[in-house]
Amino acid sequence: MIEDKTKTSAETGRQAQLEALRGRIDAADAQLVELLAKRHALVQQVAAIKQACRLPAYHPAREEDLISERRQQARRAGLEPNLVEELYRCILRHSRVRQTAHLAHEGVRPGAKVLLVGGGGKMGRYLGQWFSHSGYEVRVLETGDWPRAAELCRGIHLALVCVPIHLTVGVIEQLGPNLPADCLLADITSIKKAPVDAMLAAHGGPVMGLHPVFGPMTATMDKQIVVATPGRAPEAAQWLLDQLAAWGNIVLLADPDEHDQIMGIIQALRHFATFAFGQFLCQKDINLARALEFSSPIYRLELGMVGRFFAQDADLYAEIIFASPERRALLNQFMDSLAGLRALLASGDKDEFCAQFKRIAAWFGPFCEQAMRESSFLIERLVERF
Amino acid sequence: MIEDKTKTSAETGRQAQLEALRGRIDAADAQLVELLAKRHALVQQVAAIKQACRLPAYHPAREEDLISERRQQARRAGLEPNLVEELYRCILRHSRVRQTAHLAHEGVRPGAKVLLVGGGGKMGRYLGQWFSHSGYEVRVLETGDWPRAAELCRGIHLALVCVPIHLTVGVIEQLGPNLPADCLLADITSIKKAPVDAMLAAHGGPVMGLHPVFGPMTATMDKQIVVATPGRAPEAAQWLLDQLAAWGNIVLLADPDEHDQIMGIIQALRHFATFAFGQFLCQKDINLARALEFSSPIYRLELGMVGRFFAQDADLYAEIIFASPERRALLNQFMDSLAGLRALLASGDKDEFCAQFKRIAAWFGPFCEQAMRESSFLIERLVERF
Repeated sequence: MIEDKTKTSAETGRQAQLEALRGRIDAADAQLVELLAKRHALVQQVAAIKQACRLPAYHPAREEDLISERRQQARRAGLEPNLVEELYRCILRHSRVRQTAHLAHEGVRPGAKVLLVGGGGKMGRYLGQWFSHSGYEVRVLETGDWPRAAELCRGIHLALVCVPIHLTVGVIEQLGPNLPADCLLADITSIKKAPVDAMLAAHGGPVMGLHPVFGPMTATMDKQIVVATPGRAPEAAQWLLDQLAAWGNIVLLADPDEHDQIMGIIQALRHFATFAFGQFLCQKDINLARALEFSSPIYRLELGMVGRFFAQDADLYAEIIFASPERRALLNQFMDSLAGLRALLASGDKDEFCAQFKRIAAWFGPFCEQAMRESSFLIERLVERF
Repeated sequence: MIEDKTKTSAETGRQAQLEALRGRIDAADAQLVELLAKRHALVQQVAAIKQACRLPAYHPAREEDLISERRQQARRAGLEPNLVEELYRCILRHSRVRQTAHLAHEGVRPGAKVLLVGGGGKMGRYLGQWFSHSGYEVRVLETGDWPRAAELCRGIHLALVCVPIHLTVGVIEQLGPNLPADCLLADITSIKKAPVDAMLAAHGGPVMGLHPVFGPMTATMDKQIVVATPGRAPEAAQWLLDQLAAWGNIVLLADPDEHDQIMGIIQALRHFATFAFGQFLCQKDINLARALEFSSPIYRLELGMVGRFFAQDADLYAEIIFASPERRALLNQFMDSLAGLRALLASGDKDEFCAQFKRIAAWFGPFCEQAMRESSFLIERLVERF
């Protein structure tokens, strides 16, 4: 009894000490970030002068000198010089990248006129930046701009519809009569059958459905997928597909029906299942912080995929999940399939579970092993990163 | 001539400006290294206290919070948050490496005798290798060895039960009478309440429940979680926890009930949901190859987590899912919660979906942003690897 009490008060003392030290670490960290910001502001002034004099943005020799000096200081202060070097390499790399970022990404057809219909939305603004950086003339048609639609459409080479799914068909119908005959009409909706049909009906010229399978929070388009579903005169859309590829995308051709069927699975069903999982955690009000503490890297990643989902745009996911009656039917089928699992759980029949497991594993085939390797590779990266 | 002279004097002015700015950058850099040294000294004090209290050297969850805070500060200060994150990852990694380097893979108690009960199973063999490499004397008791159980138990310092969940309690009961009085009895079952109770009943000496939250396919134990649920005389188990930490594990203390509740969520529910998803893909016989072609990196990762699941051991997952009546009740609750979603789907009420989505996102809190960053980081690694 006495021992327990002593131990507790000693523990409390240590806890207070720890808290005080952590407070001082936090204060030091805040000062550190302040200093970095100050440094960054100074570097920007240097960069502006250099640009005015057309001097190169950086000089390797000066960087090496700087690093040598800081390493020496670190050694004197009892710090690991390699740590300081690593930090400075990182600071210097970032400032170089920031100064040269705008240079990349040439245009395939610079000067061509691109009209983004719904260009004020997140995805519209995102694509607008890419087109602008690559030398295109970008125009935007938003809800209030319909009175000047004809004017905005004059001479355009591409009209790209970037509105929410449930507005797509209506906007296409309204847009059609304003388009130049040889203008390419395309959209970026995440379903393809209805929009492509609507585009073919509303416009006599070239038509191409597009689905960039990524969101506007993607920093680079490198190796992101764009599914392209040709409507009419696909050769007239080749420059656009080339441009997407030049930005780093992988462009895949498919017909609209196949696209919609596959996306029902990999987008709608997956998102729906993630939503259901997150909702249940929230309903149960589990102790998330503690659950994360208990999570080894793979479980942290699993929970992370759920967290990532809820960091994003509710409206976009609503559009994807509620896109069409076929989709909703698919999701209902998924829920129906759980009835069998309920019976399996109730039976407590582990052998049957294992038999089903093995059947499914066989159906997945070599993908299981690939996925194992790929996710193991990622977990190693995750572990390194901590 | 006059022009040249003007130019030269302008240049001289700029040169002077540059020199002045560089001097200020150097001063900021010197302050930065000073701050790092100060931070390092504080961290060492924290480490000393933690070591005295036998607290784990660090926890990823606290590091993620720290990084979130510094990112926010960076954003407010006009700095690139990714830069600050990268710097802190580097600082934190260095301080961890420094704190744990001396521990390496040495044995904490080399020469101690370890009996692995069920040591012929996958996890038993895996742990046996680690103990052997660290200089322990490893013995194995398998199904056929019960006639010589007393002999195998003679002089052992640790009996570690590594049998499937449904056998654990029976094996513990059978083992108990053979154990030396001061021997540490521990198990590695992924539920903890029933095994710890059984160990306390079967053995009068020290008892410690363990749950290594990873499988035998994990190449390194680095940053893997082991949950430890003390039973009796935990000080007699300290060497074992130290050994696990020396191998790279993060050892977390919990009571058996808390453990079982949290693992019901992060293991059983997650695995069950993954099983349900894989089963549905198999039932629908979707075109997996084409679905993978259409998958951008994040979707590939989502499908990969399902594939990874089915690459592993059906029996282990059956044990985890069917572990206890409480667990099966939890899974039924999960399926019940889908009924509400069915009604939501039928209503087509996207606004309600978005409202629920936002409520859940708020419940997840800052974890969403962390998860977004973590998974984006992984996707970049995935893209690099292609």
